[in-house]
Amino acid sequence: MNVYFRELSFSTRKRRELVDITNQVEKTVCESGVRNGMCLVYAPHATIAIIVNEHEVGLMSDIMAKIERDFSSSIGWLHDRIDDNADAHIASAFIGSSRIFPIINGKLIRGIWQNIFVLELDGPRSNRRIIVEIMGE
Amino acid sequence: MNVYFRELSFSTRKRRELVDITNQVEKTVCESGVRNGMCLVYAPHATIAIIVNEHEVGLMSDIMAKIERDFSSSIGWLHDRIDDNADAHIASAFIGSSRIFPIINGKLIRGIWQNIFVLELDGPRSNRRIIVEIMGE
Amino acid sequence: MNVYFRELSFSTRKRRELVDITNQVEKTVCESGVRNGMCLVYAPHATIAIIVNEHEVGLMSDIMAKIERDFSSSIGWLHDRIDDNADAHIASAFIGSSRIFPIINGKLIRGIWQNIFVLELDGPRSNRRIIVEIMGE
Repeated sequence: MNVYFRELSFSTRKRRELVDITNQVEKTVCESGVRNGMCLVYAPHATIAIIVNEHEVGLMSDIMAKIERDFSSSIGWLHDRIDDNADAHIASAFIGSSRIFPIINGKLIRGIWQNIFVLELDGPRSNRRIIVEIMGE
Repeated sequence: MNVYFRELSFSTRKRRELVDITNQVEKTVCESGVRNGMCLVYAPHATIAIIVNEHEVGLMSDIMAKIERDFSSSIGWLHDRIDDNADAHIASAFIGSSRIFPIINGKLIRGIWQNIFVLELDGPRSNRRIIVEIMGE
Repeated sequence: MNVYFRELSFSTRKRRELVDITNQVEKTVCESGVRNGMCLVYAPHATIAIIVNEHEVGLMSDIMAKIERDFSSSIGWLHDRIDDNADAHIASAFIGSSRIFPIINGKLIRGIWQNIFVLELDGPRSNRRIIVEIMGE
């Protein structure tokens, strides 16, 4: 069995932002040499979510609009007494900060319209990290 | 270590629909011969979610009503300018298109009231696929 | 390859409650002896969710307030004709009853503000169980 890791590092430029990491994740699957297994994409941050969907600018705006509507920043959260990002924490907790994918014959399995995105919920930040882990044979 | 795959194929008949795939997933766990490991249920589609819950007709209707309320199709999403299914994409992105389960002593672990459902969000469609992956020993 | 399991058992005291299980999960990772792999935290219950976020009392109250607002118990769910917990089922289905983590050099990977919580949605209950599974080498 083989376990392979890569850490992706990047900065974000807005409070809320979608960063497409599909290419970097797929490159990591190649590097790993794993033919069959699983690929875990994990954000070690409480104000980031990982989501999978289509890279289409209209849809990406829709997702941000939905986040703003469902996880509003201005409704008196208690956590905002000590910080100003309760909305970001709650969205990350509910949506989840990881996604996992099958690897078959050396390829990460995803649909044609499934790109892998980091959903920044409390940027801009300069030290965001994503752990890509590949386990298999 | 053992890695085993099966692809489930099916058609859906309504725009939104719950398809119970528990039996097919459990059969795949048996076939794999894996005694201890994990079972990943993955939909390679951007307008499907995988959820786990009770197979009770009232609850299944409630889940569909909740989806309609939370992910409304008629509020002018930008993605609808080029397609007509932004609501389905957003629900899939937030809820997630996979779930993962422990396998202990050759059995998939789930609660009595935990059935595995495909949540079709943009049917009817004739070429829906689910990847069931079992990894373990 | 190594596959290791531990079952955590506990009671809950309120209808909705957050139980921090970070220490018990990390202890299980140590016990397993696995150096590199994955750790799956799975609730075999249809009215529990697993979430990852900061252990700060204000934020924990915010999360409970958000659950009450988004998954209201008093709007005539059909499932409530045979039981009284449709809201709990729906929240568990959407948020998810598991989370998975990388293990690197014998340590579970999580951010500074990422604690692991059981989100009880239909307590109080005396026989809640969580399966912690570690797979790796």
